[in-house]
Amino acid sequence: MQINGKAFRTIWFDEKDQAVKIIDQTKLPHKFEVKNLNTVKDAINAIKTMEVRGAPLIGATAAYGIVLAIMENNDPKFIKTNCENLIKSRPTAINLKWAVNRMLKKLSGVNNNEVLKIALEEAKLICEEDVKFCENIGLNGLKIIEEIYNKKKDIVNILTHCNAGWLATIDWGTATSPIYHAHRKGVKVHVWVDETRPRNQGAFLTSYELNEEGVPNTIIADNTGGILMQRGEVDICIVGTDRTIATGDVANKIGTYLKALAAKDNNVPFYVALPSSTIDWETTDLKNIPIEERNSEELSHAEGLDENNELKRIRIYPQKSKAMNLAFDVTPAKYVTGLITEKGVCEASADGLKKLFK
Amino acid sequence: MQINGKAFRTIWFDEKDQAVKIIDQTKLPHKFEVKNLNTVKDAINAIKTMEVRGAPLIGATAAYGIVLAIMENNDPKFIKTNCENLIKSRPTAINLKWAVNRMLKKLSGVNNNEVLKIALEEAKLICEEDVKFCENIGLNGLKIIEEIYNKKKDIVNILTHCNAGWLATIDWGTATSPIYHAHRKGVKVHVWVDETRPRNQGAFLTSYELNEEGVPNTIIADNTGGILMQRGEVDICIVGTDRTIATGDVANKIGTYLKALAAKDNNVPFYVALPSSTIDWETTDLKNIPIEERNSEELSHAEGLDENNELKRIRIYPQKSKAMNLAFDVTPAKYVTGLITEKGVCEASADGLKKLFK
Repeated sequence: MQINGKAFRTIWFDEKDQAVKIIDQTKLPHKFEVKNLNTVKDAINAIKTMEVRGAPLIGATAAYGIVLAIMENNDPKFIKTNCENLIKSRPTAINLKWAVNRMLKKLSGVNNNEVLKIALEEAKLICEEDVKFCENIGLNGLKIIEEIYNKKKDIVNILTHCNAGWLATIDWGTATSPIYHAHRKGVKVHVWVDETRPRNQGAFLTSYELNEEGVPNTIIADNTGGILMQRGEVDICIVGTDRTIATGDVANKIGTYLKALAAKDNNVPFYVALPSSTIDWETTDLKNIPIEERNSEELSHAEGLDENNELKRIRIYPQKSKAMNLAFDVTPAKYVTGLITEKGVCEASADGLKKLFK
Repeated sequence: MQINGKAFRTIWFDEKDQAVKIIDQTKLPHKFEVKNLNTVKDAINAIKTMEVRGAPLIGATAAYGIVLAIMENNDPKFIKTNCENLIKSRPTAINLKWAVNRMLKKLSGVNNNEVLKIALEEAKLICEEDVKFCENIGLNGLKIIEEIYNKKKDIVNILTHCNAGWLATIDWGTATSPIYHAHRKGVKVHVWVDETRPRNQGAFLTSYELNEEGVPNTIIADNTGGILMQRGEVDICIVGTDRTIATGDVANKIGTYLKALAAKDNNVPFYVALPSSTIDWETTDLKNIPIEERNSEELSHAEGLDENNELKRIRIYPQKSKAMNLAFDVTPAKYVTGLITEKGVCEASADGLKKLFK
């Protein structure tokens, strides 16, 4: 998608530099910077510090991380340790495990002089597939938006939480893909963007990328979605997910559950958009989804531009206060109207998922 | 209550200075400053800019505003205009109208050389009554906390939103009064403090005042309450209100409704603490509660201390983004377990309120 009128992806392999390039998302929205990942450690660090984030993108980064590991030291022990480190780099997103396992399966039995070439091809394929999946999620979600538009004959107001935009994937995004498709087709949309505390990915990334694509949007405090739904100012919610389990329960950015409750209370359809790589087929109890707890300074401190346009970090909380920072919550399937996947839209349930994917 | 070990109230009349003194709450938590209000314009400005905030406190400030108006110019036209301006200074809190009407009623027919004395006495009485009301709210709410403590035999986890603390009243607070009473009685409590975007009154004021009184508390993003309730880590929610209407529907800081939904979904009792001055007996449809929309810079900008402990203001949002800032939402009575008032605890319903107050 576009940044300053130029098409980008979030991650790619640069043949000339023999390095993986990423957009450093910790610098957005104030600075647009492309960064090189030269080692698997760089890749792990990029995932941990959220230079890359979003379930599909960290999956792709893990795949490229294995490529970088092979370039460094093609010793099976080294590869194995780093695969484990990649999987552990963030606990909630299932795509990490999915991507690492897919790479390992592809590379198993491949002889040494081919392994780098095949690993690189597979990492690129993971990216291409994700782009295609996200495009199809967009086309499937577009139908839902068009249906609302045809009934309402007026701007469709869509609420989204966090960033499940193209910056969370390779291109198109998951939750944003139906929105971009609608916008390009001339279906009038307006997006309520949840700020998404504490890291503000809604404000910093979703609003930023919607602006760059010219999609009308308004940032709101995470507290605001409820009254907007009560007032009929939200026609549909679409969010992403870091892990959807076999029962259709949805782990996503902290606060998603509260919006799903408000949607239910006000009869607003609540959809979750995801590629099948985000489905955790093995987990059947939402209590078994690990929920990452992050540094409380993400809450107590803020970063932004001062009056001289210089990036400053400030402490906003009282000095004596402590804070607690859970990164995800789980929305029970009963509050999810449907799952928008690359294969079609299904009910958020074991049956719904099985019918579509088995 | 205490600040740095010294007892304070949020507003008082200083005989020596012949001025009203307030704690400037826009400076908290980074600076503790007492400020003089010398004119009714100062009082209106203090309410508008939220140097004073919280339904009971802005009611008291309006009462003192009338005193200041009389001191300036005891002309009925001047008083009348300023009473109207005081009522309009913030649209959602009902206490403004309540306090102004009470003052006007008291002053009606009083002769000119007595009017200042009587106005001052009435403003002081409003404050004293509020302190007494808040103390009784505390004693009534204490019983509910004790009941949980006696069952659980372990720390009672209380979630609160925004600041309905002593800083929102004259002393004790509304939602915090049961907490302070429990703490002083040795009932073990821990408070989950919703940060309360966009103005962070939870982090800036509630956590601050709980710290100063030695009550254990942890700040969380507004998004976090849902998963904490799912996990059983919240035993009770207690919030304040800016206006509770005759049906028991509760207008309070934006985001309250979302917490009430989560409480309902997880069988967590959800209480609203209020003095009777916050009840709007005339309004019977929640749609008729005016909801204040504030400047969007409260969202897009943040203030805090830089590495040199200097107060800095930064822009956190992307330059091209717009934001929308609704200050309140309405929680339907059906999601409220009970109203904790100075007269006792009642059902959040027309019947419940009538039985207790009529």
